[in-house]
Amino acid sequence: MRIAVLNGPNLNLLGTREPALYGTESLADIERQLRIVAKELGVELIFSQHNGEGDMVDAIHGFRGSVDAALVNAGAYSHTSLAIRDALAGVSIPFVEVHLTNIFAREPERRRSALADAAVAIICGFGGYGYELALRGLVRMQARNDAGAQ
Amino acid sequence: MRIAVLNGPNLNLLGTREPALYGTESLADIERQLRIVAKELGVELIFSQHNGEGDMVDAIHGFRGSVDAALVNAGAYSHTSLAIRDALAGVSIPFVEVHLTNIFAREPERRRSALADAAVAIICGFGGYGYELALRGLVRMQARNDAGAQ
Amino acid sequence: MRIAVLNGPNLNLLGTREPALYGTESLADIERQLRIVAKELGVELIFSQHNGEGDMVDAIHGFRGSVDAALVNAGAYSHTSLAIRDALAGVSIPFVEVHLTNIFAREPERRRSALADAAVAIICGFGGYGYELALRGLVRMQARNDAGAQ
Amino acid sequence: MRIAVLNGPNLNLLGTREPALYGTESLADIERQLRIVAKELGVELIFSQHNGEGDMVDAIHGFRGSVDAALVNAGAYSHTSLAIRDALAGVSIPFVEVHLTNIFAREPERRRSALADAAVAIICGFGGYGYELALRGLVRMQARNDAGAQ
Amino acid sequence: MRIAVLNGPNLNLLGTREPALYGTESLADIERQLRIVAKELGVELIFSQHNGEGDMVDAIHGFRGSVDAALVNAGAYSHTSLAIRDALAGVSIPFVEVHLTNIFAREPERRRSALADAAVAIICGFGGYGYELALRGLVRMQARNDAGAQ
Amino acid sequence: MRIAVLNGPNLNLLGTREPALYGTESLADIERQLRIVAKELGVELIFSQHNGEGDMVDAIHGFRGSVDAALVNAGAYSHTSLAIRDALAGVSIPFVEVHLTNIFAREPERRRSALADAAVAIICGFGGYGYELALRGLVRMQARNDAGAQ
Amino acid sequence: MRIAVLNGPNLNLLGTREPALYGTESLADIERQLRIVAKELGVELIFSQHNGEGDMVDAIHGFRGSVDAALVNAGAYSHTSLAIRDALAGVSIPFVEVHLTNIFAREPERRRSALADAAVAIICGFGGYGYELALRGLVRMQARNDAGAQ
Amino acid sequence: MRIAVLNGPNLNLLGTREPALYGTESLADIERQLRIVAKELGVELIFSQHNGEGDMVDAIHGFRGSVDAALVNAGAYSHTSLAIRDALAGVSIPFVEVHLTNIFAREPERRRSALADAAVAIICGFGGYGYELALRGLVRMQARNDAGAQ
Amino acid sequence: MRIAVLNGPNLNLLGTREPALYGTESLADIERQLRIVAKELGVELIFSQHNGEGDMVDAIHGFRGSVDAALVNAGAYSHTSLAIRDALAGVSIPFVEVHLTNIFAREPERRRSALADAAVAIICGFGGYGYELALRGLVRMQARNDAGAQ
Amino acid sequence: MRIAVLNGPNLNLLGTREPALYGTESLADIERQLRIVAKELGVELIFSQHNGEGDMVDAIHGFRGSVDAALVNAGAYSHTSLAIRDALAGVSIPFVEVHLTNIFAREPERRRSALADAAVAIICGFGGYGYELALRGLVRMQARNDAGAQ
Amino acid sequence: MRIAVLNGPNLNLLGTREPALYGTESLADIERQLRIVAKELGVELIFSQHNGEGDMVDAIHGFRGSVDAALVNAGAYSHTSLAIRDALAGVSIPFVEVHLTNIFAREPERRRSALADAAVAIICGFGGYGYELALRGLVRMQARNDAGAQ
Amino acid sequence: MRIAVLNGPNLNLLGTREPALYGTESLADIERQLRIVAKELGVELIFSQHNGEGDMVDAIHGFRGSVDAALVNAGAYSHTSLAIRDALAGVSIPFVEVHLTNIFAREPERRRSALADAAVAIICGFGGYGYELALRGLVRMQARNDAGAQ
Repeated sequence: MRIAVLNGPNLNLLGTREPALYGTESLADIERQLRIVAKELGVELIFSQHNGEGDMVDAIHGFRGSVDAALVNAGAYSHTSLAIRDALAGVSIPFVEVHLTNIFAREPERRRSALADAAVAIICGFGGYGYELALRGLVRMQARNDAGAQ
Repeated sequence: MRIAVLNGPNLNLLGTREPALYGTESLADIERQLRIVAKELGVELIFSQHNGEGDMVDAIHGFRGSVDAALVNAGAYSHTSLAIRDALAGVSIPFVEVHLTNIFAREPERRRSALADAAVAIICGFGGYGYELALRGLVRMQARNDAGAQ
Repeated sequence: MRIAVLNGPNLNLLGTREPALYGTESLADIERQLRIVAKELGVELIFSQHNGEGDMVDAIHGFRGSVDAALVNAGAYSHTSLAIRDALAGVSIPFVEVHLTNIFAREPERRRSALADAAVAIICGFGGYGYELALRGLVRMQARNDAGAQ
Repeated sequence: MRIAVLNGPNLNLLGTREPALYGTESLADIERQLRIVAKELGVELIFSQHNGEGDMVDAIHGFRGSVDAALVNAGAYSHTSLAIRDALAGVSIPFVEVHLTNIFAREPERRRSALADAAVAIICGFGGYGYELALRGLVRMQARNDAGAQ
Repeated sequence: MRIAVLNGPNLNLLGTREPALYGTESLADIERQLRIVAKELGVELIFSQHNGEGDMVDAIHGFRGSVDAALVNAGAYSHTSLAIRDALAGVSIPFVEVHLTNIFAREPERRRSALADAAVAIICGFGGYGYELALRGLVRMQARNDAGAQ
Repeated sequence: MRIAVLNGPNLNLLGTREPALYGTESLADIERQLRIVAKELGVELIFSQHNGEGDMVDAIHGFRGSVDAALVNAGAYSHTSLAIRDALAGVSIPFVEVHLTNIFAREPERRRSALADAAVAIICGFGGYGYELALRGLVRMQARNDAGAQ
Repeated sequence: MRIAVLNGPNLNLLGTREPALYGTESLADIERQLRIVAKELGVELIFSQHNGEGDMVDAIHGFRGSVDAALVNAGAYSHTSLAIRDALAGVSIPFVEVHLTNIFAREPERRRSALADAAVAIICGFGGYGYELALRGLVRMQARNDAGAQ
Repeated sequence: MRIAVLNGPNLNLLGTREPALYGTESLADIERQLRIVAKELGVELIFSQHNGEGDMVDAIHGFRGSVDAALVNAGAYSHTSLAIRDALAGVSIPFVEVHLTNIFAREPERRRSALADAAVAIICGFGGYGYELALRGLVRMQARNDAGAQ
Repeated sequence: MRIAVLNGPNLNLLGTREPALYGTESLADIERQLRIVAKELGVELIFSQHNGEGDMVDAIHGFRGSVDAALVNAGAYSHTSLAIRDALAGVSIPFVEVHLTNIFAREPERRRSALADAAVAIICGFGGYGYELALRGLVRMQARNDAGAQ
Repeated sequence: MRIAVLNGPNLNLLGTREPALYGTESLADIERQLRIVAKELGVELIFSQHNGEGDMVDAIHGFRGSVDAALVNAGAYSHTSLAIRDALAGVSIPFVEVHLTNIFAREPERRRSALADAAVAIICGFGGYGYELALRGLVRMQARNDAGAQ
Repeated sequence: MRIAVLNGPNLNLLGTREPALYGTESLADIERQLRIVAKELGVELIFSQHNGEGDMVDAIHGFRGSVDAALVNAGAYSHTSLAIRDALAGVSIPFVEVHLTNIFAREPERRRSALADAAVAIICGFGGYGYELALRGLVRMQARNDAGAQ
Repeated sequence: MRIAVLNGPNLNLLGTREPALYGTESLADIERQLRIVAKELGVELIFSQHNGEGDMVDAIHGFRGSVDAALVNAGAYSHTSLAIRDALAGVSIPFVEVHLTNIFAREPERRRSALADAAVAIICGFGGYGYELALRGLVRMQARNDAGAQ
């Protein structure tokens, strides 16, 4: 099973960016920890980060035929990008939306997600550990679906 | 570590209630599975379900001094109950909000949570498995906080 | 055929409560008259009144397997209670919403019903006589459905 | 007692128009059945259908002095027509609003009635049978008022 | 003169609940102080606290015929409960709304009261001392009304 | 100078329609009085009343080439009819909007006029006397414009 | 009969202020013309202009006992001033609202009047001639009321 | 193949009505040009214009059984008429919505169409030439559907 | 201790202004009664009334250094005046907002206070007696603060 | 005449992306067909597709001086991108907006176009054939303008 | 060149008023510094401060004929005063709006300016130094306009 | 001191783009003039322009550690881009927002800035000269902060 982990704008700053809000763990720290879990679960990870909305759309298009599911933290684009939502719907890959902070407890414009109606699940507020929970959840879902399809 | 798992209205119907939407797993199934994970994690569970808003407030008051954290699926009250939110804030216990379905992909009146601004994290859309993810997340957070407090 | 008649908060005050608005008939008067019509129609009535939202949810859960349809006047909870709406949808019983007054001609917050999208029909403005009309309507619908199912 | 039954735009299509939504009964079927009930209740019916808003206003003006009460299904005009509302208020005839479908469970623009604040009661969701219930309700109300006036 | 003092959800936590916001005085402290004032004013107090919305409705129904006026702090239900508002209007007892904090200076969803249009007066922001002010105000109003009625 | 006086739905009921609101003067009374003023001012009147929106549009089209200005009381259509507004703009005739009642002091849906942005002036709240004021205003304006055009 | 003509902020600039919008007539021109009409109608005029909201409130208080009716062009305060509205309601003097331009055809914030619900009538869009129409309307109304009161 | 071309209020004024906005082509010019294209495409046209909403509903009812598709320019009714929308849905004829101007670049109340959710396509902003484009589009769609149905 | 009592527009009309709404007590009556209570409490009163918003701002500026707390009934300015709110915040004096009527039970535009977020408490609906309650509350608060500060 | 055809995000997925919604024709199919029509009309096409908002802005800047008109399907950016709108306005090239689906019959956030107020015309709902109609419309318009300019 | 510097309510408190928000510089400090810059630029300053809205209107009227441009910090009136906006538009003097704080980063009701649509430019967030920037900007603009007019 | 000047989409068109709105000065003209001022102030400028939102985010990330403050004209992205706002907050560099036109006097969607709550100040409406004012303001602020930090 191959799972893409797609990160959006400013996540490359993680660890140094507003640490009181986003914590001191870097995106590399998260990736390292996530690869350990992936190995435990027997899945392959494709991990990337992009600051451009179009670059994220391109990356998602590249998932078609090569990826079974995705974990998406689209950062600030989560709240407005119909293009990323359409790309995810267009390649027909189940995905879980992840946010480091509890976006539903933040400013009004961050309390909504333009991706949510296409996502299978949402996890937010666990910091970097939310990626691990999302990965476990995704693998469990896919395993169930495969079992159901036999 | 003791963790309360608080369930709201209609969750006792689980497994028979609109299975296309909520799945065929019963609340007892979820509890049984969650107790296995709790044993693995070395935590004690207090598991309950209530149909009344006031009963939920009462239950939360009972957590004070006896529970370290909570996992809350307040069902339909999630979207409107300031009283449950205030009870949770009043007893000062960190809690994770769980929903079986991805509430942010449903009808507009279910896309907001009155509890969210007091919750540390939200998990929704994983069905009963979301309880397990939330439990893992809660235990991890508490462990970190304890480590940080030493 | 068994039909539940479920009444919500403050309806026990009927006859004495704001009579200019709600009339001088008591809930017992309405029940007495309704039982006469039920006898005529050959249906059994389960008639109850509850002031608590959770109590109404409990009562609705009790309908499962024992009641064929319901007549619901949820009083003030009609305008806000997703929990009662979900309970009714959860037990899969067709129900008619009844209001003594024409709620769509009243204050803005009473002009909407949180139950309406799950109800098969709505009758409001006929005072206590609306219960009788709703009962006739429910029985007629069920008879048609039974005929159609043969 | 004379009662007008006023039908609005597109109701002449009934039976053929979107039958999944509006049923297979024609307006003539409804009228025929309603005349049987009227005979039983000893009231005279004036039954008409109009596609024009102004034609409905004209028809209502014609009720003055010749009709005791009305049953109004203004179709799509129900949601927007202040002119029909004013005509009904202007001729001072009590009327019940009837809709075939449960309009409060439909699209947002159909969830409000411009007539409601002038209507004595509303019945919706019973299909053609709602006309019969409305007629019984109207006659009962008028009988009570007459009794009260003596 | 008998005056009911009705307290809503979470007020039993007072003194320990978010003391920075609600102060360190307990509900028992407030009751004790209020009974001293009541004795001075020559009125009898019925003091209660309830976490359930339905329990509050029940309590209000019990006021009928036995209580002359009420002092109501409905806590979080103040902002949404039409059922409590209707119960108060239904038993026709003048009441003053009290809040410990200045709710009109708090979060938007706490800036409105569903009870206000039925209340004779509102006092908020004085902490527990507001109960005493409200009691004095109520007694004065009743005295005036009695004087006016002679 | 020829001036059209166009009246909308339900104005034919004037004098008998809700007299507490609209007064006891009939439309014929208003017309009679207005013809006296027209004679004094030396203008010719074309006076009509229509219940249909399309009939009003037709009437307005008829003004082209034969009428110099208009006085329009579109009744309930004033608040919603873009078609009547477009007809008036389409025939390029200056018009004054007249209402018997002060519509800006009435229900919210009557506080706006769909015609206003095409009207030169508005008079409301003077009952039938408002027609006379509007006529004087129109004639004065036209006289000025003619003087200015020389 | 004594009639106050009260003018609000910036009306002293009339004639020089944005003439394309407000015309070239000065406030003195309007007053002069209005005094001619007042003489014809046999009424006494008190004409004033104020730039301060409080000054307008003071002026209105001065009308009590000395003025029978008023003509009010509150300029920009018309759209927001509850204080002026309350002053007019407080001294219980019938008044007509006048605006030089058709405010309902202007920017959204000018399309509403805070005075309208207390005014008996509104005239707008006739420029300075609107004052004359309003005066005629006021005198007519007062004459009718006097006749009715005998 | 027979195609109805239905035109709404004020379109009979075309060519003379606000030519800066709507152009100098008359409706007869558009019809003449459209008949040439229809001949080329081998389809029969039924071309009509109506100022009344009810008349448009009547015309649409007449399409049932005699017309294969329609081209609808409902003019000002496009923005508000649920009755016309329901008539079109009721007779189950595919239709294309046409507007001379780009309505989505005009005043807010003209930026929405009440017909759009029932239309298969929309063309606006091409003036009279839009009718020709719509006709070509409709014929192409029908041809495809016929090919697909074989 | 010195306490300012600041009254806003139209309060000088009290006793004669809309007595059904505001009562028959004059502002002088209120002041007289309040001075008796002040004497009892051992505080000095500075009592004033202003119709101008700027005059109220000036008066508040004058409180700096000479007044310990204030009681503010800003009348109609309460609902809109950021300037008065800023003046009160600018001079850093704790104040209680008082209203004669229960503003939260009145028209929508009176249900909000622009001062509330800077006020320590609000009392409304007790008529003139509310001033006395507010004065007692203010003195109690200040006494506590002084005790706390020692 | 040179005409640019600019396609936005996810349109490269056409044919495989949600075919029930967007059809089975690929973007290459559309381009091929469009080039045939372009040849017939004697115009040169510049056809491109971009997933990035900035890339679309760059492409539009490149049109200046080399392109006479454009056909723009900005995909998901249509609903939010002021930057693309400004680029099109900035290079002063007339353009037609094209959408495969009838966006005005879709989800609310897709019912508005940020480009519309700068576009000369809109065609939506015809699938790939809409490009051909738009091309014919553009060429006709330009021909007329050229004829008018001579 | 003469330039007026107009300051609104509470700005006289500057330096002592909420210094964390508004800084410790007094209005006299700002004026002193600004006069130095004015001398450098060769312009004459008229500097004033007013707490009343009407006083500001009066001051603006006084600018007519004697002032070339203005710098306006209307304080709290900036957000609501149409009267000040109309006065500035009425005397036809170009003006720059200045705010000490970045009003667009503050509470919602302070994020809009009623003056903005009449202002040529806005500077906010620079504290007292913003006056100097605004003065330089104004002088530069006027110089350009004078150059352009030659 | 090093200061970045970051320009957003379409600003490369300056001078040729809608000159009536944006002026005839090119971005190179602005840069040239700004470099003269920078030399005078002794600061180093990094000047860039980007059409892509992601490119702007990348550029901002590059400022970390190498730039002391920034001047940002994000063009059309100013109104919607949370990503650019987060990038600016993420690198913790004080910045001033600049706009050529007075955006608060333009279309509603341009009257708000998504960057404003993170900006220290805003200057808009001075055309290219606003860059110079913003640079002077930034340098002054930084100088003060440096002085304060010593």
